[in-house]
Amino acid sequence: MAGTDSSRDPAAGGPAVILVEPQLGENIGTAARAMMNCGLDDLRLVRPRCRWPHSKAARAATGAAATVEKAKVFPTIEEAIADLNHVFATCPRRRDMVKPVIDHRAAAADLRAMVAAGERPGILFGPERTGLENDDVGVADALLTVPLNPDFTSLNLAQAVLVAAYEWRMAGDATPGRVLALGRAETANRQEVLDFFARLEAELDECGFLRNKEMRPTMVRNIRNIFHRAGLMAHEVRTLQGIVTGLTQRPHAERARSARSAKPAGKPARPRRGRGE
Amino acid sequence: MAGTDSSRDPAAGGPAVILVEPQLGENIGTAARAMMNCGLDDLRLVRPRCRWPHSKAARAATGAAATVEKAKVFPTIEEAIADLNHVFATCPRRRDMVKPVIDHRAAAADLRAMVAAGERPGILFGPERTGLENDDVGVADALLTVPLNPDFTSLNLAQAVLVAAYEWRMAGDATPGRVLALGRAETANRQEVLDFFARLEAELDECGFLRNKEMRPTMVRNIRNIFHRAGLMAHEVRTLQGIVTGLTQRPHAERARSARSAKPAGKPARPRRGRGE
Repeated sequence: MAGTDSSRDPAAGGPAVILVEPQLGENIGTAARAMMNCGLDDLRLVRPRCRWPHSKAARAATGAAATVEKAKVFPTIEEAIADLNHVFATCPRRRDMVKPVIDHRAAAADLRAMVAAGERPGILFGPERTGLENDDVGVADALLTVPLNPDFTSLNLAQAVLVAAYEWRMAGDATPGRVLALGRAETANRQEVLDFFARLEAELDECGFLRNKEMRPTMVRNIRNIFHRAGLMAHEVRTLQGIVTGLTQRPHAERARSARSAKPAGKPARPRRGRGE
Repeated sequence: MAGTDSSRDPAAGGPAVILVEPQLGENIGTAARAMMNCGLDDLRLVRPRCRWPHSKAARAATGAAATVEKAKVFPTIEEAIADLNHVFATCPRRRDMVKPVIDHRAAAADLRAMVAAGERPGILFGPERTGLENDDVGVADALLTVPLNPDFTSLNLAQAVLVAAYEWRMAGDATPGRVLALGRAETANRQEVLDFFARLEAELDECGFLRNKEMRPTMVRNIRNIFHRAGLMAHEVRTLQGIVTGLTQRPHAERARSARSAKPAGKPARPRRGRGE
């Protein structure tokens, strides 16, 4: 089954997700889907308020129905967390108690360190409408918060699970944050790019676009910068060479000239010469 | 209305969220809720496949119904993005095109810089079932990816919007990732803690718990470490003093002694003396 083969997915064996008195089957399903998206599969339910098992949960889970099916159900929080070494409680409001308050990003680093040390952590999520009670929070080592818009902090249950699972995933992910997807393309070498510049600038000299001697060095630099910023592929340089060929071919240039001379007087047309004229 | 007062919420004025051919009203509503959770409110819809407006969208949005109501609807992607300066396309699959691929965390830093420079960015999200088409992706400067479990990368639409909105929020959030919530409590000063240690160790000497002279320094250090790690508040030190008083009060000690002497022979009872004996 997907998501449980730890040799394939390094995120397996992550924190348990414990939903306390969840009210809606759909939310349990969507939470399970978010867990599996992020490689988590230990779902625990404490006194679910909806019928259980629930057809809507499996449907909302789509491909993560297996995570829903093997969810364990417990009568108390204490029984749900008994085998864990660390418990975090998601809790939007600050309670009148002295406890570390950690955001999910910092917590994810802690969770990774715990799991790497062979410890079992878990994260408690409260019921949709009320969140965790003070007594539920009491069993936790620390509170987890999301620094949301202070005007609207009410996060959907499945969304709250996603934030935790996503940060867990990101904390273990070594994918670079920024790459250029090349597909099957190869980046152009400098000679190909310089050849293109030489060709383009020769054509632009010829057609008069670069006729202002004083401005010419700046204009050439600016034009080169456009193409440098694009980080051209070899096949793209060939495309650009083809574009220059296409645009400077006599039939096209002739058409453009006659179109321009046929137009009623407006902005004066820039003199344009075909190659070799 | 919440979330639109930029003097109050620094995240207002963030990227536009553009849903291309969304199929389910609920997903639009839940996406709007996730946006408002993270201080975003520019929602745009391109050819929604569901009836629009949609009662389920407003219901799923809960407190973010206003974001749903003022969502703009466009017949084409081009019209939806015309006023924007930068467009990112969320796209789980690598297309056969040469484009930067950025994760949401790196993109959020870019988005913050763009908005700070007075530019308007936007993020495209494809239909639930198929995602964005290659032609839709063509209008974007870069692709956005989430490094999910490779066995299950299908992210619910509203969940995908949340990841983008959450990273936008986090990139502008100055809340420390880890604090100790004190409530109304004050941390103990060192004298209060040292006084408690002196009292506790005197009692433990008296009752014989620390009678092993060789082990005593290590045991004292270990006991002190338990309480140091807790980072005690002033009122908690007073509670601990009360606990020591309670446990060493004669009536209790007497009860414990008689209970122990009444027990059948087993592990020999550790000698225990009341205070001043």
